[in-house]
Formats: sequence, C-alpha cells, structure tokens
Amino acid sequence: MTVLDDLRAAFPDLVTDPDILTSLGRDSADLFGDDKTGRPLAAVRPTSTEQVAAAVRIAAAHRVPIVPQGARTGLTGGANAIDGALLVCLDRMDRIIEIDVANRLAVVQPGVVNATLRRAVAEHGLFYPPDPSSYEMSTIGGNVATNAGGMCCVKYGVTTEYVLGLEVVLADGSVLRCGRRTVKGVAGYDLTRLFVGSEGTLGIITEITLALRPVPPPGLTLVALFGSLRDAGAAVTAITSSGVGPSMLELLDKVHLRAIEAYRPMGLPVEAEAMLLVASDVEGADAKLAVVEQLCRAAGATEVYVASDAEEAEALQAARRLSHPAMTKLAQTTYGPSGEVIIEDCAVPRSSMADFCAAIERIAAQRGVTIGVLGHAGDGNLHPKILMDRTNPALTEAAKLAFDDIMQLTLSIGGTCTGEHGVGLIKRDWLAREIGPVGMRVHRAIKAALDPANLLNPGKVIAD
Amino acid sequence: MTVLDDLRAAFPDLVTDPDILTSLGRDSADLFGDDKTGRPLAAVRPTSTEQVAAAVRIAAAHRVPIVPQGARTGLTGGANAIDGALLVCLDRMDRIIEIDVANRLAVVQPGVVNATLRRAVAEHGLFYPPDPSSYEMSTIGGNVATNAGGMCCVKYGVTTEYVLGLEVVLADGSVLRCGRRTVKGVAGYDLTRLFVGSEGTLGIITEITLALRPVPPPGLTLVALFGSLRDAGAAVTAITSSGVGPSMLELLDKVHLRAIEAYRPMGLPVEAEAMLLVASDVEGADAKLAVVEQLCRAAGATEVYVASDAEEAEALQAARRLSHPAMTKLAQTTYGPSGEVIIEDCAVPRSSMADFCAAIERIAAQRGVTIGVLGHAGDGNLHPKILMDRTNPALTEAAKLAFDDIMQLTLSIGGTCTGEHGVGLIKRDWLAREIGPVGMRVHRAIKAALDPANLLNPGKVIAD
Repeated sequence: MTVLDDLRAAFPDLVTDPDILTSLGRDSADLFGDDKTGRPLAAVRPTSTEQVAAAVRIAAAHRVPIVPQGARTGLTGGANAIDGALLVCLDRMDRIIEIDVANRLAVVQPGVVNATLRRAVAEHGLFYPPDPSSYEMSTIGGNVATNAGGMCCVKYGVTTEYVLGLEVVLADGSVLRCGRRTVKGVAGYDLTRLFVGSEGTLGIITEITLALRPVPPPGLTLVALFGSLRDAGAAVTAITSSGVGPSMLELLDKVHLRAIEAYRPMGLPVEAEAMLLVASDVEGADAKLAVVEQLCRAAGATEVYVASDAEEAEALQAARRLSHPAMTKLAQTTYGPSGEVIIEDCAVPRSSMADFCAAIERIAAQRGVTIGVLGHAGDGNLHPKILMDRTNPALTEAAKLAFDDIMQLTLSIGGTCTGEHGVGLIKRDWLAREIGPVGMRVHRAIKAALDPANLLNPGKVIAD
Repeated sequence: MTVLDDLRAAFPDLVTDPDILTSLGRDSADLFGDDKTGRPLAAVRPTSTEQVAAAVRIAAAHRVPIVPQGARTGLTGGANAIDGALLVCLDRMDRIIEIDVANRLAVVQPGVVNATLRRAVAEHGLFYPPDPSSYEMSTIGGNVATNAGGMCCVKYGVTTEYVLGLEVVLADGSVLRCGRRTVKGVAGYDLTRLFVGSEGTLGIITEITLALRPVPPPGLTLVALFGSLRDAGAAVTAITSSGVGPSMLELLDKVHLRAIEAYRPMGLPVEAEAMLLVASDVEGADAKLAVVEQLCRAAGATEVYVASDAEEAEALQAARRLSHPAMTKLAQTTYGPSGEVIIEDCAVPRSSMADFCAAIERIAAQRGVTIGVLGHAGDGNLHPKILMDRTNPALTEAAKLAFDDIMQLTLSIGGTCTGEHGVGLIKRDWLAREIGPVGMRVHRAIKAALDPANLLNPGKVIAD
C-alpha cells in the first residue's frame, strides 16, 4: 500500500489534482524567492479530530511530512507547501462548539473564521478581542498557531492571552488535551502556550477553548496628523508612557495614506507625512482623548480631531485594514504585475519609536527602495513594507538588504524580529540570531521531544 | 574529588551544617506525611548567574540532584529538600537591576521580595500586580517558578501575564535567555511561559524581565455579609457574569472570619456565615460597586456596605492576608501544637461557585473534619483549608479523604487541581489524573528534553 492508497482509503475525497494542489501551495507572504514553495503530494480536508489523527498516523507511517493549513492568510510562508508533503486543510472544521456565557468562554474548531466568532459571541454581549487585519478571512486555528495580534492588542493583548485550553493531534497521531476551562490554573507545564505560536511544528490544533470579555463601551477615535514620521513616533512614546491606556494606537505613514486613498478613495489626509489613530473605549473616553490630543500637539501634530461619529471611526479603521491590498496595488502600479510587498514585523521598545521611524526612512533612502511604515505603534510593533519586483534582480537585492537592515536595527535596539506574524520561512535566520545558540538548542530539543521524526511542518520556524 | 570538595572549592561558604540544612528542608506546606522531606547534602547561596551555573555544573558532573529555593513560602512541598540534593538558595540574588519607566518594565534577580519590587516601582508611578498573600516574604523567582496568583488576579491576571523574558540556567549549566523586552513578540516557541510555573524542574531562573502597569486609581472596597456560604457563592457568579469587572473579589467563610478575629481582633463580622470583599479601582468605582451591592442583595446578602476610607479597606485586605497563620493558630488551638492546615487550591468554573461551596460544606460534615473556605472567588479559585493533627491517625485519614473528595469534585465539574499554588509534591497524583496519560507523556518528554538526567528538582510536579 502506498501512502496515497492508505490516504484514499481513509479520505475518499483526497485531493491530488495538481492545479488544486498548486492553489494550496502558498500562504499570503511575498518571499524573496520562488524556491520556497514546494510541490505537495496530496491534501486532505478532515471534518473531525479523529480524521486529523488518522491523516497524521498514515503520513507518519510513510514518513511523509505534514503541513497544516487554515485560511493561508499568514505572512511568513509558514503554511507554504513542502515537496512531497500532505496538506491538512482545516477549513471544514469550522464549528463553534459552545459559547458559555456565564463563564465567558467559547470552544471552537480551528477552521472558524475570526469574524464569525466575533459576531457569534457579540450576540451574547461578549467580545473576542484579537483582530488581525485578516480577521474576515483568517481562522482561529491559524490565529492560535501564529499567536496573531491586531489593532486591539495595545489594550487587550494578543491571541495567547485568550487561549485557555487546546486539543492537539501530536506527531504520532495521539490526541492531547491541555489547559483548562477555568480562569486560573497552574497544573503542570504550560503546554497550551507552548503550542500557541508554534506554527504547526509541534502538533495540529483541533479544538480551542477561548476566554471572552464583556463588550466594551463604543468608544471614541482621535486622528492626529504630523509633518514628519519622527514626530508621530515621538507622540506614540508620549502616549504610551503617559498611562492613558488607549484601546487602539495605530500609525500610518504617507506612503500608506496615499496607497490606501488610491486603492479606495475616502478623503484620507494624503498631504500629511504621518497619521495616528487613537481610540479609547472606556467610560470617560473624551477625557482620555483630551490628554492624547495635548500629547500629540506637544509632539508637533499639525492637526488633531476626534471622529465625529462611529461611522467615521469605523471607516478609518477599515482604511487601516486595507493597507496590505492597497500596498500590493501600489507595488503593481509601480512595477507592473510582478510588483510585490515584503512585510516586516518588528517590535521595538516603545521608547524607541521616534528614532526607529526616522531610521527606517534613512534605510529606504540609502537602499533606494520604497518603504511604507505602518503598524500597531502603541505596542512598538511596526510593519515596514518594502515594495519589490522579483523580475528586477537589482531591486530584489536592494529590498533584501533593506529588509536585513531593518531586522539588524530592530535587534540592535532590543527589539524582536517578529511581533505578531511569526517566523515561518521568512524569519528563520533572524530567529536564530535573536535567540542565539542556546535558545536554538532548546528549540530543537523541544521539537525533537514532540516530533522526533520531524514530520510536522518541517523546516518552518527552525531551519532543517 | 568528591562533590563536596568541588563545591567547597567554588563556594567557600558552602553550607553543610546539619541544623542549617534541616532548617532549609521544607517550604510552607503541611503535607500528609513527614516522609516527604529529604536530607540534603549541602546548600549554596550564589550571588550571580555564573555561580548558579557553576553549582549546576558541579552537581551535574556528580549526578547530584538540585533543589532551587527562594523564600520557601510555597504551599505544595515544591521547594522541599530531597535526599542527597544540593540546595541552591537564591535569596542573595536580590537586586533590582533596572526599572525602565518609559517602557514600563523591570529587570530583577530572582531573590527580590515581591513587596520590595512593588514599593520600588510605585516610586515611579508603576504597579506590579501579582500579590500572593505571602508578598511581604515571597520572592519574584519563587512567584515565577510557581506562577503565583493573589487577590489582584480577577482583574490583573497571574504572574505569567507579567513575565516578558527570563534568564535560566539549564540542567547542563548553560545559560538560556528567552523572551523579550518588547510588548509583543512571537519569535519562536514561548519558552518563557514554559519555564513560568515549572517549579524548578526545567531550569533555575536567574533573571526576570517583568511588565509593569500604571498605578490604578485608589478605588473603593465593598463588604457583603451572607447567611449561607451558598448565597455568597451565588453572588460571586452574579458579579462575575455581570461584566462589572471588580479589581478584587474575595470570599471568606465563618471559619476564617472567626479564626482571623481570634488571631488578631479587629471587629470582623464573626456572626456572618460568609463575607465577600469586592473592590473596584476605576474612575466611577462607586457606580460599579452600586451594581455589585444590588447583585449581592439579590443573592440574599444580609448586610452590604462600602468601607468608609482607605484605612478600613486596607485593614480588611490585611485581615484576608492573615488567613493562613490564623487558620494554623486555630488548628493548634483545636489540636495542640501538632495542629496543622492542609490547603486546597481548586479552581472551578465561576458559574459553579454556589454548588461548589455547598458541596465542600457537605464533605466537611461527611468526613467529620473542619474545613474553612476562602479564596479568590472572582476567579473561581478557592482555598478550602482542612484542619488536621498528624498525631491522630483517624483524623489524618479523614482529612486526606476530604482532600481527595474536594479534588475529585473539582475535576468532575471541569475545574483544575491547582489554580495558583502549583503541583509540587502534594498534587502530583491529581495532576496525572487531570491531564491524563497523553498529557503526562508530553510532560515527561519535555522534562527529558531539558533535563535528561532528571537532576532538577526531581520528583516534583511529575512523580519519578
């Protein structure tokens, strides 16, 4: 029996069509080379934990590598296919199993789309905070596997803060249940948080127990415009160190403002060098934003105003969420259909924001590339985006050098190479530099303990 | 060269005096048997990471087990000595290395006392929330190793939420640095949170980077008295599911009220069957507590009032913190000098609080033991305390059965065997029952990956 025979016996709808497999080959990352996408053997779309376990057992018996996939909205190549691998697509496991209102938790399958869960719990007056820009498409399983962030994190934290418990299919096909349904718990090692953010390299997540919060008050959103990116960065540091505690603190530079306005005209202030969006969702939000306004003006803001109503605030947030397609469009407008965007994901100490922003502008000038800066500035988590054209070797090289310059700068000022997107393929070398040889040794030891044959998403996070 | 020769060469002040070693033999747990305390070989008191690494290397070379110790205020036997072990006492590593006000973080050595750090950061307008009752004695290293909780957790979470990064001496004496100084970060596996709560079984923590918060407003404290423990439990569920978000929600039963009043007379309402302490530390706390008052009255509170001033509120919290010595005193008053207190640490879904409280009262009656109930009710985290006298075999057996009854009940309603104290020696069997064979296998795999010779606090958390 070949592996395909075994798989077909268990999964009559086994996917082996080359075109479909090619369409499943990549996540949403633009990488520096095409060589990072492998040709998979087949794909399964299980509907239950038992089916995931069966797929893993068959693959393991034949030493076939396994790549778990969700909505493939990731930005690091973490869900990219590997040569000869079995793709385990979790999109059919999309059931909200339980919403426990009294204990404020939900139990979901990994394929539930983030926005679907948000809407379902909102009907009960509950709130699931993590909101990656992809939240209308990305799944909770992928969010958990990458420990996704979003715009809420400056107040509400990232995905891992909401994961109480997990069910995970391990590399041998056995099923682990870890974590809890209670608010607190310290029974044994924190396996739950070891699997969160492990990017499919330690196990396949098949069920997630999530903590929820009460829906916050509607809140207010402030817009501040600046004549330089550095001034906006200085305002960010002033706001975050003030203790005013915003529920959103986003930065967009002029490259983004113009790209988004070109992509979907809505009257954005394209003449500004940088814009901050600052929200507060507590009782007394107006007083909080009055403090923010003062801090922005002191940092040199040229214009500050509070969005007149919820619709305007929502439109500004929606504009922010369009940044990725808008920048891709800008790259294609600039370079033709082969235009692409390489997204950085640096997190730096919040006190460094002004200098960091200014340094990125210098790197763009030195390397002769266009870099748009935006991000969750309140967390010190920026996404510089480098425009690139892979058909142009000189530009590709310049973009790669700019990417490395930014990574190098990030680490040199006490930052981390990935704030929320993860390591995947794109950051493996930088992970190794960031955590050093002892850190890499511990990573390899844990990987080997849980996946001794290196079958689960091999080569992701840790280079083979 | 014997291990003592090697140790003495590196540590001229090596402790081998039997009386001192005996005094270091135990943490603050009353266990069911004396057999759980071993006789150590020696103790070192390192003052640097390098010295910790040197001690580990020497011990490892001679296959001598190692028990890390902080203030030995733990309540599970986790820091108890083991026969022939080297005790690594971290009390001299008590330096606050850095307080970074702009980025709201602190870097500390493990021996810094919790209260010392709290006071140091308060001078900068900052707040380190985790507040185990032992906070005037217990150390940050021990708090991190056990993932300690406290009264703040209902709003602010437990220790792990504040640990950004760690330096850890591994079983081979190498030094790992993991985590980050930034707000967000997903670079690789979450090793930091794997070490948090690992109770010295995976490595010895030698430096901790902690997130801080702005000091909250002073707040208000409400007292609610009830004619039954069940009614108080029902009020807890009503408050936690209301979304009012208290900053403290503590429950004390009549056994505790009377024990504390006898230990330190302060006019506690000893005629009540149960008391809730509920605080709010936001702007508009009075409106929040008005909601709490309504919910308490609806649940059958016999009396509800708001503490008249900060002194009264502080006195009530201080009374709550006296519960452990007060109950020990009650045990000794009841049974003589051999009286002891076995502390449970159950966390259950908050919706179960009323039934759970009532069930504990039934267990006490059925087993013929005195059980005082108190705890962080807002988290569903209760500490039933069983009075015991080890010189009385029948009572010891009854106490043990009551302990097991409560654990069994906790797990049967979806709770966890330890909400914040940890596993140590006292909960090893219950951990195994809670997480099952696959969970235990993963625990052993990770332990073996990081400590292949099983030298770090062997037999704690996971039975040998």
